[in-house]
Amino acid sequence: MVKSVSVGLLGLGTVGSGVVKIIENHQDKLMHQVGCPVEIKKVAVRDRDKKRDVALPEAVLTTNVEEVIHDPDIDVVIEVMGGVEETRQYILTALKNGKHVITANKDLMALYGTELLSVASEHGCDLFYEASVAGGIPILRSLVDGLASDRITKMMGIVNGTTNYILTKMSKFHRAYDEALAEAQELGYAEADPTADVEGLDAARKMAILARLGFSMNIDLQDVYVKGITEITEEDINYSKRLGYTMKLIGIAHRDGDKVEVSVQPTLLPETHPLASVNDEYNAVYVYGEAVGETMFYGPGAGSLPTATSVVSDLVAVVKNMRLGVNGRSAVTPQYDKQLKEDSEIYSKYFLRIHVKDQVGAFAKITSLFSERGVSFEKILQLPLNQKDLAEIVLVTHQASLKDYRDVLQQLRDLEVVEEVKSSYRVEGEGAL
Amino acid sequence: MVKSVSVGLLGLGTVGSGVVKIIENHQDKLMHQVGCPVEIKKVAVRDRDKKRDVALPEAVLTTNVEEVIHDPDIDVVIEVMGGVEETRQYILTALKNGKHVITANKDLMALYGTELLSVASEHGCDLFYEASVAGGIPILRSLVDGLASDRITKMMGIVNGTTNYILTKMSKFHRAYDEALAEAQELGYAEADPTADVEGLDAARKMAILARLGFSMNIDLQDVYVKGITEITEEDINYSKRLGYTMKLIGIAHRDGDKVEVSVQPTLLPETHPLASVNDEYNAVYVYGEAVGETMFYGPGAGSLPTATSVVSDLVAVVKNMRLGVNGRSAVTPQYDKQLKEDSEIYSKYFLRIHVKDQVGAFAKITSLFSERGVSFEKILQLPLNQKDLAEIVLVTHQASLKDYRDVLQQLRDLEVVEEVKSSYRVEGEGAL
Repeated sequence: MVKSVSVGLLGLGTVGSGVVKIIENHQDKLMHQVGCPVEIKKVAVRDRDKKRDVALPEAVLTTNVEEVIHDPDIDVVIEVMGGVEETRQYILTALKNGKHVITANKDLMALYGTELLSVASEHGCDLFYEASVAGGIPILRSLVDGLASDRITKMMGIVNGTTNYILTKMSKFHRAYDEALAEAQELGYAEADPTADVEGLDAARKMAILARLGFSMNIDLQDVYVKGITEITEEDINYSKRLGYTMKLIGIAHRDGDKVEVSVQPTLLPETHPLASVNDEYNAVYVYGEAVGETMFYGPGAGSLPTATSVVSDLVAVVKNMRLGVNGRSAVTPQYDKQLKEDSEIYSKYFLRIHVKDQVGAFAKITSLFSERGVSFEKILQLPLNQKDLAEIVLVTHQASLKDYRDVLQQLRDLEVVEEVKSSYRVEGEGAL
Repeated sequence: MVKSVSVGLLGLGTVGSGVVKIIENHQDKLMHQVGCPVEIKKVAVRDRDKKRDVALPEAVLTTNVEEVIHDPDIDVVIEVMGGVEETRQYILTALKNGKHVITANKDLMALYGTELLSVASEHGCDLFYEASVAGGIPILRSLVDGLASDRITKMMGIVNGTTNYILTKMSKFHRAYDEALAEAQELGYAEADPTADVEGLDAARKMAILARLGFSMNIDLQDVYVKGITEITEEDINYSKRLGYTMKLIGIAHRDGDKVEVSVQPTLLPETHPLASVNDEYNAVYVYGEAVGETMFYGPGAGSLPTATSVVSDLVAVVKNMRLGVNGRSAVTPQYDKQLKEDSEIYSKYFLRIHVKDQVGAFAKITSLFSERGVSFEKILQLPLNQKDLAEIVLVTHQASLKDYRDVLQQLRDLEVVEEVKSSYRVEGEGAL
C-alpha cells in the first residue's frame, strides 16, 4: 500500500497558494482521512522571485513545467495555471506518464474533457475536475454519486459569479451595466477584459461540463446556445420587477426523452424561485431528477479558498483510490448518443419589449402576428413613451417553440408599425418554492 | 471480480417499494454504473398478502427476517422497516454475517450509529445511511467527500419536513398550529401521532448524525438540546414578521475551537436568510466551512422516491466497493474527543415576549434586570393589551450567553410586575444573502 504521496503543482496563483495552505494547515486531517502523508514536491511557476504569501522551500519552485510532469516521484499533478492548448499538452503528458491529474480548468475541460478523460482511463489514471464548475460546491461529485440512481431531466444554474454580481447590483442598487461592471472589476470579481464572463462563455463552458456529466452524453461547447448580459438595460430590469421577475444569467440543460437542449442566457425568474434569491457572487445549481424531484446546491462560485478546497477534495479522492489501487475507474463513459433538440422542440416563455408607432391599429397588427403562429400572451403592458410619438409594449408570452418565436420576432422587425424590438429574454415558469 | 449482486430488503413500505421500482426501472443505468446486474433476491414483509404497487415474484417475499439476514447468497441488506431495538439486532446479525447494510433509519443511526459503524468496520462491511438525513439530499456524502479538506464550523438545517410544512402554513396562510397540523396529517406529511416530529425529536436525531459526521466527534442524541414547535402561537409568528424574521425549526451544530453545541429549536431567521425561503415540506442544510465559506444543500426531506433514490445511491456505492474489493473502509472513526460547550459558552440572540402589569416603572425594572447581566437589546416593542391592565413587551437581545439569558429569564418570572413570560426563541444573526 502507498506510504506517502507526492504532489506537483502547475501554477501558484491564488488557487495554487490556497491549495498549498490547505495541505499545510490540514496535515492532521488529511492524514486521518487518507492514512498517509501528502507532500508538495514541486511547483512550476512563471517567476521564481515573485513575492507570494505561502512559504515554500527554494528547491520546490521551478520555472520548468517539464520538471513536474516528468518527475518519476510525483504521483499527482494539480493543474491550476489555466490556459488551454499548452496546458492540454502538459496534462496529456502527465497522464501518459501515469500521473493522476486534478484540474480547476473549465476552459480546458469544456473543450477537451472527452479526450482527456479517455486518455486518463487508458492509462489507469484519475482525472478529477470538481473545481472547474462552481468552485466551492461539490456539484460534480453529487451528480455522479449522490444522484446516481436517478434520471436527471433538468439542470439550471447560476454558474458565473461575475455576471451574478453585476445583475445583483443592477437589480438591487439601480446601477447601470457599466457602473456595476466597473465596481465588479474594482473588487476583483471581474477581470480587466471581462468578455468571457459577460458574454456568457464562462457559464457556457460550465454548462457543457454539467450537461455532459448529468446526461451522460458528449455535449460539446458549441452545442450550448449562448447570450450574455451586455445588452441588459435598466428598463429591462425595471419591467422585470414590475412583472414579478428577477433577471439572472441562467444556464439551462434540459432533457425531454432522448433529446437535450443546453443554453446560457439572461432569463426572467419568478421572484419566488429559489435561484432568484442567489445574489452577489454566489453560485447555485438546481437539479431536477425524475425520482428525487428538485434539489439545489448553493455556494461560492469562485475565490481562492473555495476553489482550492474543491481541488484538495479531489486530491483526497485520488489518494484514497491510490491506496486502494483503484485509480482510473471513475471516469464515466458517456452512455447515450448525443441528440440535440431542434428549434421547433425547444419550448419556453418569452419577455419582449418593443417600441411601436403610436397609431390606430398598431397593437392589433402586432398581436395578430403572434396569434397566426399560435403564440399567446400571459402578460401585456402598453405605455406611452415621452418621445417621438412612440408607445412601448411589453409582453410575456405563454410557452412557444423557439422556431415560432424566432419567426415572429423576424416578422415583427419587418412590420411598418414597429419602430424597434428593444429586447427579448427567456422567461422561466413559476418556481416550486 | 463480483459478477452479480443479490440484495435483500427488510420492509416493503413506501420507501421499500420505491427502491424496488428504481432497481427495476433503472437496470440499464445501474449496469452501466456498477458493471454487473443487481437482483432483489428476498424481501421480508409483515404480511405476504397485503396489496402492493410493486410486482415481485411470490418466492421473493418472506415473513421471516432471518431468511434474509442469514441467506448466504445475499450480499447487501437494505433496511427500510424502521424500529430500533429489534432492527438493531437484525443489522448487527447481517453485518456479522458479512453483509453490507444500507439503512434509512435515523432513529437507529442516531442512537446506535457508533456501535453499528464499528461492527461494520470490524467485519469489513459497508454501512451506509445517506437516506437517514434529508432523504433526497446527498448531504452525508457531501460532508464526507466534497468538503473533505475543509474544517466545518457550523451546520444549520431545516431537517424535518412536517414541522416546516406546519410553520409555513402558519406563517403564510395564518393557520393556527392545530389547523396546520391537521392539514399536514391529511396530506400525509404528519403521522397520526406527530410527537416525534413536532417535539423536535426527529430533527434532533438528524442533527446528531450530521454533527457526528461533520465534526468527526461521537455526538450522542442526548447531547442535542431539543425544543419543539407545539407552543408557537400566531402572536409569535406575527411579531416575528413585524421584526423582519421568519420562524423556522432550525437544527444548529456549531463548533468553536474544540467545543461544540448541538440544538434543535424554533428560531427566528432574518427574512433574507436563504433558509428562510425553504418552505413547505422541503429540507435544506447549510454548511459553513472555514475554507469554502457557506454552502447550502436543498431538496425534498422525505417521500418514497427521494428517500429510495438515496438508498439506491448507497447501493451503487456498496456495489462499486464490492467490485473493487474495498468495502468497510469508508466508515470514518471519530477523530476528536467529544467536548460540549457549557451554557456560559453558548451565545445567541433571543426573542422574548412578556406580559407586564401596566404600571409606572415596570419597564425600567425589566430592563435593569437585563443590564445587570450585561444583556443588551437590539429591538424593543411595547404595546398595550386589550385586557387586564397589561402591556405586552417584545424584545430582541444582542448576543448573550445561554447561562446569562436563563438567569435573566428566571429572575423575570420572579418579578412582581411580570405577569407572564409568554414566549422565548433563539434569533439567528443576519444572513449572508
